[in-house]
Amino acid sequence: MGSEDRLTNAERYERGVKTLVEMVGEEGAQTIGNIGAFFPDMAHQIVSFGFGDLYSRKTLDLKQREIITITSLITQGATEQLPFHVHAALNVGLTPEEILEIVLHCAGYAGFPKACGALNVVSEVFKARNITPVTASKP
Amino acid sequence: MGSEDRLTNAERYERGVKTLVEMVGEEGAQTIGNIGAFFPDMAHQIVSFGFGDLYSRKTLDLKQREIITITSLITQGATEQLPFHVHAALNVGLTPEEILEIVLHCAGYAGFPKACGALNVVSEVFKARNITPVTASKP
Amino acid sequence: MGSEDRLTNAERYERGVKTLVEMVGEEGAQTIGNIGAFFPDMAHQIVSFGFGDLYSRKTLDLKQREIITITSLITQGATEQLPFHVHAALNVGLTPEEILEIVLHCAGYAGFPKACGALNVVSEVFKARNITPVTASKP
Amino acid sequence: MGSEDRLTNAERYERGVKTLVEMVGEEGAQTIGNIGAFFPDMAHQIVSFGFGDLYSRKTLDLKQREIITITSLITQGATEQLPFHVHAALNVGLTPEEILEIVLHCAGYAGFPKACGALNVVSEVFKARNITPVTASKP
Amino acid sequence: MGSEDRLTNAERYERGVKTLVEMVGEEGAQTIGNIGAFFPDMAHQIVSFGFGDLYSRKTLDLKQREIITITSLITQGATEQLPFHVHAALNVGLTPEEILEIVLHCAGYAGFPKACGALNVVSEVFKARNITPVTASKP
Amino acid sequence: MGSEDRLTNAERYERGVKTLVEMVGEEGAQTIGNIGAFFPDMAHQIVSFGFGDLYSRKTLDLKQREIITITSLITQGATEQLPFHVHAALNVGLTPEEILEIVLHCAGYAGFPKACGALNVVSEVFKARNITPVTASKP
Repeated sequence: MGSEDRLTNAERYERGVKTLVEMVGEEGAQTIGNIGAFFPDMAHQIVSFGFGDLYSRKTLDLKQREIITITSLITQGATEQLPFHVHAALNVGLTPEEILEIVLHCAGYAGFPKACGALNVVSEVFKARNITPVTASKP
Repeated sequence: MGSEDRLTNAERYERGVKTLVEMVGEEGAQTIGNIGAFFPDMAHQIVSFGFGDLYSRKTLDLKQREIITITSLITQGATEQLPFHVHAALNVGLTPEEILEIVLHCAGYAGFPKACGALNVVSEVFKARNITPVTASKP
Repeated sequence: MGSEDRLTNAERYERGVKTLVEMVGEEGAQTIGNIGAFFPDMAHQIVSFGFGDLYSRKTLDLKQREIITITSLITQGATEQLPFHVHAALNVGLTPEEILEIVLHCAGYAGFPKACGALNVVSEVFKARNITPVTASKP
Repeated sequence: MGSEDRLTNAERYERGVKTLVEMVGEEGAQTIGNIGAFFPDMAHQIVSFGFGDLYSRKTLDLKQREIITITSLITQGATEQLPFHVHAALNVGLTPEEILEIVLHCAGYAGFPKACGALNVVSEVFKARNITPVTASKP
Repeated sequence: MGSEDRLTNAERYERGVKTLVEMVGEEGAQTIGNIGAFFPDMAHQIVSFGFGDLYSRKTLDLKQREIITITSLITQGATEQLPFHVHAALNVGLTPEEILEIVLHCAGYAGFPKACGALNVVSEVFKARNITPVTASKP
Repeated sequence: MGSEDRLTNAERYERGVKTLVEMVGEEGAQTIGNIGAFFPDMAHQIVSFGFGDLYSRKTLDLKQREIITITSLITQGATEQLPFHVHAALNVGLTPEEILEIVLHCAGYAGFPKACGALNVVSEVFKARNITPVTASKP
């Protein structure tokens, strides 16, 4: 517990930025920058707590964490935050097919309306990245 | 699409039972049996659609699917259905530490109340299985 | 709009009590009485606004209104309020089979966890009323 | 259970398409077709499970099923999926006044914000269909 | 209880309009007028029950009531209704910094996605009112 | 930003414990201790982030923060976490009548089922503390 206890907020923030850039690149990290210009303390918590404390932890890797994040966003209908994390998921190594599979699995657990809403967003991100998923054939 | 198209409901059900037993054993599958005694068509859909169509698909393995399921249950506050899936998650190979990590990651996405509610349930399942998670040391 | 405009709160309350008793009998109405002993203004709103203004309206009958109520309760996971309305639904003429059918339809829209949670509650109410639904045969 | 057991996926799909066309016409069914071009397995589940298994069941008719669907969508705030089902509800025989009445009843159960959000969507669909509801007079 | 009991619907409505105008001015009240043109009974309930019965009560003042309303809207993801109440909150005396603080506190309770979604809306309302919050300095 | 930047995790934790004890006393803080025995990192985040970072901030006082917290818990149906915060709310100076008033206001925004579920919990906490609210007279 020692070294984590002595960690300062500045170091948590720095760790968060590093993870954030690993996930969405300098450009994607700019999204948080926009929040910071308006409400710096909120941006600080997103970076330090969200990316510095949660995403930077071990035990689960970034691919597993994006499965969790995308599932939670779909389940609560937070489609507005989905594009950021579909991009991040692809960047850390989830395949397009795995992302679609999360959406379909969620249909059973969060209901079809939430899954359909998510599918629209996923399809737009895929289009923006010129991705054509290989899903036409059944498993 | 051919072979999947010719699959009958009886075969979907059979496939579902097989996956269900792989996940929770004969004893766990009995939970669905209780539903079936009361409302057979509902039990049929849970087994055929849920376990036969969704969980039996490829692309994501059962460990990944339980990450999704547990996250969705935490996010919607469906603590009543959690014990079944914490058992299943342990059975298909998620470690106790990974399950706790899902709960902590969800605190940021679904809020602390949902995460605390889930932690209570997880702790009861661990106790029932004599599991002591190695979480005292920071990552 | 004339006569509705001149309606007093006392008359709205009276209308609500009448509808409430029609739905759950004198005994069921006592549930609201318990709330009234603790927080009278809340009980007043439940009776006058809920039962006096909403349930007493025309355009939809009490059976249709209970379909709406039960669906909304299932979708938001408010299982605690379900027994009251499963009783009411049976009292105003929904059959046990129709109530089960609402639960199954909701599985697709609100997800299976919410539907399974609701089914537990419905099964307890049916047991308390000695009801054995004729659902073993497929439609 | 016999005949339902021998039903194949192709037949479930066919049954779903038939119900879907009954509800929203060939043109409305095209919405699902768009999903199918992107993620065929998801479209298959929507048609076979949603429209083939759920909507095609007996016990509740299509008008009652749309009351359930619209209520569930309002309660979970899934306004994006509402236009499809307001159209379907009108097509299977719910009157404009009954649809508005569902929204108002939901105000008490899911809160006014969800009801107001839904009312916006309903009003747009009515406008698109040149419908002027006769709701100015109190019941 | 006497005087409240004798209150008519017309008087509840009048009381609601008065509170509504106090909160959002004549112009803001026009929003409800638009609903009234489409579905008068719904507008009546919003004004009489919402603003006449709830907001007009004592025990909590309008600033405290807007804290509750904004929190509930953030928690349920009802961002569409937020602008109306961010305007109202500013009108009844909450400072821009207090409103941002509600959003940040909600991040812990409803999760960061809901808080981020709300922050977007708040920032747009502030921009429309030429408000620059003094939040750059930590508390 | 300087001093906040140099704050260590140990200091955030210490600040959180101080706020926590101010809110619920040594005994109430023990609830978090129980979580800490099972999953220390989660307890650390609850104390450091929740009570150290959020509740310890200025701009809103503890009474206002408990209005937010209780509203968010009611809106998401997290009744399990309510007793802790009803106790805290009373400890930091909200009156029993103000707490009931939050519940009633939430009925309009989150729907009556959530408000009724919350009222049950509030009534149990009041009973445990021998509190009889003065709510029988209308405002």
